[in-house]
Amino acid sequence: MSLTCVFCNIISADEPAIRVFETETVLAFLDARPVSRGHTLVVPKRHATNLDGLENHEGAEMFRVGTLIAGALRRCDIAADGVNILVNDGRAAGQTVFHSHLHVVPRHSGDKAKFAAGLLARRAVELEEAGASIRSQL
Amino acid sequence: MSLTCVFCNIISADEPAIRVFETETVLAFLDARPVSRGHTLVVPKRHATNLDGLENHEGAEMFRVGTLIAGALRRCDIAADGVNILVNDGRAAGQTVFHSHLHVVPRHSGDKAKFAAGLLARRAVELEEAGASIRSQL
Ligand SMILES: [Zn+2]
Ligand SMILES: [Zn+2]
Repeated sequence: MSLTCVFCNIISADEPAIRVFETETVLAFLDARPVSRGHTLVVPKRHATNLDGLENHEGAEMFRVGTLIAGALRRCDIAADGVNILVNDGRAAGQTVFHSHLHVVPRHSGDKAKFAAGLLARRAVELEEAGASIRSQL
Repeated sequence: MSLTCVFCNIISADEPAIRVFETETVLAFLDARPVSRGHTLVVPKRHATNLDGLENHEGAEMFRVGTLIAGALRRCDIAADGVNILVNDGRAAGQTVFHSHLHVVPRHSGDKAKFAAGLLARRAVELEEAGASIRSQL
């Protein structure tokens, strides 16, 4: 168990998370403080602080799984109308956990104000049901 | 020459763009209305409206080239401190050109207000010099 990286601890199951998908290379789980319901993170299982520490196959798999999650967010009862896929690489770009990760954020038509509020609030919420919904479409 | 897709027209060179990098699968060029100097788009050469129309190898190559560009934005005289990599998939997520594309946006420490202003303004600016600077590091 690493004392320093919360995502490594989630990968090793030393810290809890609502997992939605997993491959040999990456793990997808719900953001504990979602911008919107269903907000998912995709991380490489091998610790890499930044994009430039990723192997090409790891980046490729993060993006592939991100698009799979995007499809599930549209099909499941979250019924996303659109999806933002986002990497914040570096503190100046908004990175707060220094284990590289890809955000998959469901969007709904006309949600701009609610989305902006979610960006500011980032509150911890009940995640179990959203996780089950996404998993049902993967 | 397609009458309907500006990015297909850029790929076929029927419309101008400041190109920064190219592989068999993808083209990278500067956004004509950048959020910040050096804002680059990576697009598949084959037309695909949305993420779910991409082949896995096309998405992988978009992400790989996006990370290459991110490195160049840090090393070149744009001297990015961080980078946002972003796909807006669907109108509800802010997609405005319906040929799937990945944004690579340089960030600088403390630029939040300037970045927010750039997001709102999206003005056409002189791009040649930024393009030459990025190309020098690729
Ligand atoms: Zn880690
Ligand atoms: Zn096109």
